Amino acid sequence: MFMHNKRLQYTVRVSEPNPGLANLMLEQFGGPQGELAAAMRYFTQALAEDDPGRKDMLFDIATEELSHLEVIGNIVAMLNKGAKGKLAEGAEEQAELYSTITKSGNDSHVTEVLYGGGPALTNSAGVPWTAAYIDSIGDPTCDLRSNIAAEARAKIVYERLINVTDDSGIKEALGFLMTREVSHQKSFEKALYAIANNFPPGKLPGIEKFASVYVNTSQGEGDMKGPWNDGPEWERVDDPTKALPVDGGDGKASVALKGAQLKDAQESAARLRSDPTGNPTTGADLGAGPGAGRTKPVKP
Amino acid sequence: MFMHNKRLQYTVRVSEPNPGLANLMLEQFGGPQGELAAAMRYFTQALAEDDPGRKDMLFDIATEELSHLEVIGNIVAMLNKGAKGKLAEGAEEQAELYSTITKSGNDSHVTEVLYGGGPALTNSAGVPWTAAYIDSIGDPTCDLRSNIAAEARAKIVYERLINVTDDSGIKEALGFLMTREVSHQKSFEKALYAIANNFPPGKLPGIEKFASVYVNTSQGEGDMKGPWNDGPEWERVDDPTKALPVDGGDGKASVALKGAQLKDAQESAARLRSDPTGNPTTGADLGAGPGAGRTKPVKP
Amino acid sequence: MFMHNKRLQYTVRVSEPNPGLANLMLEQFGGPQGELAAAMRYFTQALAEDDPGRKDMLFDIATEELSHLEVIGNIVAMLNKGAKGKLAEGAEEQAELYSTITKSGNDSHVTEVLYGGGPALTNSAGVPWTAAYIDSIGDPTCDLRSNIAAEARAKIVYERLINVTDDSGIKEALGFLMTREVSHQKSFEKALYAIANNFPPGKLPGIEKFASVYVNTSQGEGDMKGPWNDGPEWERVDDPTKALPVDGGDGKASVALKGAQLKDAQESAARLRSDPTGNPTTGADLGAGPGAGRTKPVKP
Amino acid sequence: MFMHNKRLQYTVRVSEPNPGLANLMLEQFGGPQGELAAAMRYFTQALAEDDPGRKDMLFDIATEELSHLEVIGNIVAMLNKGAKGKLAEGAEEQAELYSTITKSGNDSHVTEVLYGGGPALTNSAGVPWTAAYIDSIGDPTCDLRSNIAAEARAKIVYERLINVTDDSGIKEALGFLMTREVSHQKSFEKALYAIANNFPPGKLPGIEKFASVYVNTSQGEGDMKGPWNDGPEWERVDDPTKALPVDGGDGKASVALKGAQLKDAQESAARLRSDPTGNPTTGADLGAGPGAGRTKPVKP
Amino acid sequence: MFMHNKRLQYTVRVSEPNPGLANLMLEQFGGPQGELAAAMRYFTQALAEDDPGRKDMLFDIATEELSHLEVIGNIVAMLNKGAKGKLAEGAEEQAELYSTITKSGNDSHVTEVLYGGGPALTNSAGVPWTAAYIDSIGDPTCDLRSNIAAEARAKIVYERLINVTDDSGIKEALGFLMTREVSHQKSFEKALYAIANNFPPGKLPGIEKFASVYVNTSQGEGDMKGPWNDGPEWERVDDPTKALPVDGGDGKASVALKGAQLKDAQESAARLRSDPTGNPTTGADLGAGPGAGRTKPVKP
Amino acid sequence: MFMHNKRLQYTVRVSEPNPGLANLMLEQFGGPQGELAAAMRYFTQALAEDDPGRKDMLFDIATEELSHLEVIGNIVAMLNKGAKGKLAEGAEEQAELYSTITKSGNDSHVTEVLYGGGPALTNSAGVPWTAAYIDSIGDPTCDLRSNIAAEARAKIVYERLINVTDDSGIKEALGFLMTREVSHQKSFEKALYAIANNFPPGKLPGIEKFASVYVNTSQGEGDMKGPWNDGPEWERVDDPTKALPVDGGDGKASVALKGAQLKDAQESAARLRSDPTGNPTTGADLGAGPGAGRTKPVKP
Repeated sequence: MFMHNKRLQYTVRVSEPNPGLANLMLEQFGGPQGELAAAMRYFTQALAEDDPGRKDMLFDIATEELSHLEVIGNIVAMLNKGAKGKLAEGAEEQAELYSTITKSGNDSHVTEVLYGGGPALTNSAGVPWTAAYIDSIGDPTCDLRSNIAAEARAKIVYERLINVTDDSGIKEALGFLMTREVSHQKSFEKALYAIANNFPPGKLPGIEKFASVYVNTSQGEGDMKGPWNDGPEWERVDDPTKALPVDGGDGKASVALKGAQLKDAQESAARLRSDPTGNPTTGADLGAGPGAGRTKPVKP
Repeated sequence: MFMHNKRLQYTVRVSEPNPGLANLMLEQFGGPQGELAAAMRYFTQALAEDDPGRKDMLFDIATEELSHLEVIGNIVAMLNKGAKGKLAEGAEEQAELYSTITKSGNDSHVTEVLYGGGPALTNSAGVPWTAAYIDSIGDPTCDLRSNIAAEARAKIVYERLINVTDDSGIKEALGFLMTREVSHQKSFEKALYAIANNFPPGKLPGIEKFASVYVNTSQGEGDMKGPWNDGPEWERVDDPTKALPVDGGDGKASVALKGAQLKDAQESAARLRSDPTGNPTTGADLGAGPGAGRTKPVKP
Repeated sequence: MFMHNKRLQYTVRVSEPNPGLANLMLEQFGGPQGELAAAMRYFTQALAEDDPGRKDMLFDIATEELSHLEVIGNIVAMLNKGAKGKLAEGAEEQAELYSTITKSGNDSHVTEVLYGGGPALTNSAGVPWTAAYIDSIGDPTCDLRSNIAAEARAKIVYERLINVTDDSGIKEALGFLMTREVSHQKSFEKALYAIANNFPPGKLPGIEKFASVYVNTSQGEGDMKGPWNDGPEWERVDDPTKALPVDGGDGKASVALKGAQLKDAQESAARLRSDPTGNPTTGADLGAGPGAGRTKPVKP
Repeated sequence: MFMHNKRLQYTVRVSEPNPGLANLMLEQFGGPQGELAAAMRYFTQALAEDDPGRKDMLFDIATEELSHLEVIGNIVAMLNKGAKGKLAEGAEEQAELYSTITKSGNDSHVTEVLYGGGPALTNSAGVPWTAAYIDSIGDPTCDLRSNIAAEARAKIVYERLINVTDDSGIKEALGFLMTREVSHQKSFEKALYAIANNFPPGKLPGIEKFASVYVNTSQGEGDMKGPWNDGPEWERVDDPTKALPVDGGDGKASVALKGAQLKDAQESAARLRSDPTGNPTTGADLGAGPGAGRTKPVKP
Repeated sequence: MFMHNKRLQYTVRVSEPNPGLANLMLEQFGGPQGELAAAMRYFTQALAEDDPGRKDMLFDIATEELSHLEVIGNIVAMLNKGAKGKLAEGAEEQAELYSTITKSGNDSHVTEVLYGGGPALTNSAGVPWTAAYIDSIGDPTCDLRSNIAAEARAKIVYERLINVTDDSGIKEALGFLMTREVSHQKSFEKALYAIANNFPPGKLPGIEKFASVYVNTSQGEGDMKGPWNDGPEWERVDDPTKALPVDGGDGKASVALKGAQLKDAQESAARLRSDPTGNPTTGADLGAGPGAGRTKPVKP
Repeated sequence: MFMHNKRLQYTVRVSEPNPGLANLMLEQFGGPQGELAAAMRYFTQALAEDDPGRKDMLFDIATEELSHLEVIGNIVAMLNKGAKGKLAEGAEEQAELYSTITKSGNDSHVTEVLYGGGPALTNSAGVPWTAAYIDSIGDPTCDLRSNIAAEARAKIVYERLINVTDDSGIKEALGFLMTREVSHQKSFEKALYAIANNFPPGKLPGIEKFASVYVNTSQGEGDMKGPWNDGPEWERVDDPTKALPVDGGDGKASVALKGAQLKDAQESAARLRSDPTGNPTTGADLGAGPGAGRTKPVKP
């Protein structure tokens, strides 16, 4: 069960309203790398988790991320506070209000006109948050790697937001939030490496002859070697089309159709054949005028 | 520039059509952990990448993932081949066709009725592929971690598909695809650790006093200790609300409003106040009948 | 700040695994009328709210909805528990596993293959949760009405789920969750009617001559009268096209274009005119065969 | 069956083109609170409705909302008219056209470059309209409440648009549209309260002991009392974790696994255990440089 | 302005309820090729259209498509009618109701549990309708081609639905709807070819030397010739990489960075370089156990 | 199998960074008419195609579109290059960086803050690419028409982008890409018209008496005649409601309910009836203040 304490985990002191800046901050509220994504990622993993240590850790961090969602949401709310009253009360000249909304920057007009200045669960482009951002698949050696990557990304987006703000109260709170992502990444790393044999993930071993092959499919000037594709660990294939396919078969796709299925497929194919031998007049031929670069109509 | 060879990277031999199984396979075609997501993840990173080694590697692996998209897409196409002709030619009794479509399993009716048996860029629930699945943010220490996690997830989804198939040709091709994910994960790992000081990501250091704190926000029976929250590396906080907020402030959110902004905000608040002192009759009071558990209308 | 207690608000006792039923339960986890939608609706309103009574109430109810999300999520997790292990360990015959996944019902195959048996933030069709479900606009006379409606909807979806379950532990927990929605609706009703002059919402009065008009735009057998369109409060218009438009103007849309804008528009119109006088041969004419019901090609 | 009269329900007189303003107007065309959402909400309810009075009313109002969609769409079209020709004819200097598109405000560049100046079914952020905005669930005591709330929201968004426009023709048309929402809300209210015992919605009574409980989950400075959580109607719980869970059970989630299911689950847990006793070296340890605030690698 | 007549354009006679079939019918209600997509496609084009003939035609056809949406919606409503009452009244044994919902086929459980039996604006997979289905771009030579294609697609989806239904009343109504798509396609064809010089679309001519080139990028067994890539109209390039790039340049992407931009880019590159010379120990190395196919840890 | 050559199909020479212009270019990278949509449209069709000529052509063009995705992606990457380093290195004054991001135009702030300057698979509004853009349905007479329309649209969006750019290197590359769309349209036209009897699509003939009817549903000033609705080919219906419905039935929707289904439906209707005879007091009545245009409370 969740409880809430009205004190924030970190005090939010905003010097003055700025809807454009508020809009950028939405990235960490309702954006793909933001706090709702983090909280829901860990919370749903916690529910499905059977390992007692990880279950506890996931609830701990999920709950803290909800508190971070609250902190960043308050930053957004404070930055929008001026705009909110102005629009609700219609207190300004319309032309001036229009100008404010249009010029305050980014997509802040959406927050103002549609959401009335409240923090909306969108990113800074106004795109609604979607659970498609959450990549948990119910295997801890994968999910912990996903969490590690997610914390790294969140750290960097906070860093970018710090780089565009000179309001010291906001910078301070963002610095706190950014640092906590570093700390969470460390926890997830420890939990991952506390699983023996965590690589490769899963139970099925790979097929040995394909597991150390590096296929050099992109060729030409700029081809490079490095530990990721070269050295004793790797079997490097520089001419992939030479022995195609890798299984020694015919490189085709096949399925056996029988009886009615075969007949239907053949009839369908016959009915819908594009005859390669003629040169039919087309709609484009009919529509082509005498302009440059246009196809010439072909007499039927 | 891309080129295409009509031979598949791995031969696809499907024993017989099965639209229900085809539908499950869509997870690795148009699903979040599938091959289009992989190809586009690495391809877009390659475009933005300036490091020559990583750029080359990202193009190599992106191109191979496109070839894997082709392999899994052919598996789907073969499994749907019978259904395709049947529906197009209307060759069966309608009641029988309805039954086939409804009973062939999963969401295969969507592929049949809407997509005509072609492999669609959806997951197995019929949800269209979205670029929201791609989590690249343009920082290699993050993006490589995201790639590592993505390969791990793809490996496991292939493993699950292998576990539900007894068609040996499909199993073999899936085994190949699964193994390649392991190999790609290794490449991305090498490229990540070939960046010095890759942790924490980014340039801004964390704030020292928050970087090693573990906040035990979830409490009660089941509280655990492990290397992820305990030991010399960690400063563990077991009573987080005791000294709230962590910055020593008042834990509130504030912004300075001035002049017209302040006046508008105050007028708005006054106009829209919920009076806490009375007990108004409500719509629910009006609508409540004499049934059990219903609120009683209160006289104003 | 949020805190978490490992005890659930309501004990979850599931008699046996059932992935098909788990999938239906997802409606109240990641569906449009579910608990995440509720929690986020009230939480984001709380952040933007300035009225102290409502702010407190919104945080109270948002926090409780998070606890309900936890209860329903545990129901889903328990119902999926058997499937989870089976798929991860690949312990069954493949054909049997395929059959289980395909036959266990609804869209449960998605939860199993893609999400590994964990509760995913989707509805029962596998559609990812989206913040497009949240309709808050930052005006309390609207948002409270939206909340009232949302609680009513959630109550009914719980009622439907109770109607399809005969697991007594699940029924009991669902009954608790359903009842709490009733209680929340009452709170929101009280808070709405504690705002004086809450109808019509907003500050601008309507235009008097249009405010009590009922336009009978759907005509024919089945036309009805009732308090919603008839009586002293209403001015009923039964022949809307008679005096069209209602403002007495010409019922057209116009804008004044000047100078280059006018010239560009005219040139564009001339260039792209569909000549109404001829009878051009079309692509369809070219493609039409001798079949029944087909258009006949027209000689140019 | 629908019919169309080329006269608008309200004449649209726009003084001059303004793509930035056009973009804001899209909120009521293809936005969540806009006219398509309204029309489709009532139209789909009308189709499923069996009550003759409501069915008639829903068709009446749905049809009128389509006419409103036409009015607001014409406002958008007129405001974009200048931009449309300019871009199609390429008549301006490119740098000037770029500047116009970039500076005309909001997200109007999307309408211009992608939609060619036509009114697109997006909101003002360019987010495509989605049926996820429609919250009908097929129970009239819920759907009418949803309609009431939807009309209230639409009224306010029109009010905001009026507040940012000084084109008198647009203001007039918006005033008409805004007023009609007020009128529709009144109709839906009448229809709701014409249902006896409309609260609580549905057929199942709530569980009496939970129906009047208010759970004070958010605590600390700012805790308030009001008719929504206090008084004879309410049983207020100020210390929710004291007697957790409310059902007197153990507050845990359980399910009985048997036979192979139990064995699989146990094997899975054993294989994937995070060992809480050691202190493994992690990827972060490998990657951590000597910088401030970084974790120290731990020797294995 | 729109008006509505309570008579349907085509009578809907459904022999008996069938939620599974109802669900398939949703493809033409809220699916990508369905009637809402058609109506909105033509309606939004009509609003932006300046050509009087096309504007009239687009309003005519848009309005008729709304009437078709009504017909197909009524088919869905009738097919769901039995399910609706059963679930609302909870009149059956729960286990039986669960079985009905799970077995009635396809994704009909979503319509039943979430939408209460009403026709929802989703496709047959439960995916909500999105304006992303509409491809209008505000140029009539494009939009008419898009309309022609859309009508063709709708015709085929109706044909498939007819092929899976043996309810004669439904077949008859679907036959009517299918035929109207054919008729609409003919109208759009006429309107397109009534535009002189409609190919290529737009005002800018293509670059002559690239306009008739066919690039044979897919090679190997299966390479074919036909009027689409061979003959006097075409300049066929069978070895595309031989003279790459086609412009005779270096085939690279470049931009001139100056001053601080250059310095920042260089610093960024240096900081984030993946060193190609070493062979770092990776997280995967740490996690790899002794299993088959696993990478071997490399000593630093 | 796909291969990649590091040379671009067309050299990309960008004169200077411009994130605002980069953002517009995203329309052809991750927008609905862009190159990913094209490549995936043809690639998925190729996989399902059985006709050898079309299969080859679809692979050829799909592969070329991937190469075009690479060209436009490089344009985006070059235009963002300056912004990328600046934000990553935090090298500028924050206020200046904020100003740059806010003022650089369009939605470029999203690319900068969220995607770090990399080309993201979104359109210029920041909306993630979705497979809902792809309209293939697995019938070649439809899919080829869809492809023809798609190429026409892509041609026009390129033309618009050319019209807003004065960077000659970009214009040149866009000109190449635009021309290739013209060429691809020609191929698809030839392939369509090489199918005999391609109109109407499909196998089922239309119903003759409805196939040539034009229903004049939109009436009033502006009614026009043209080859699309008038002439010997057409049977024009100018008074559609006169003989409604067209089938001669009663124009109603019906289904036979029996036994329990009928009883449930009747009970449901009785329980939820809106009584048309009274005039109930409503929530709006309770909330209405003494303001102008407000409804008057009615005494019960």
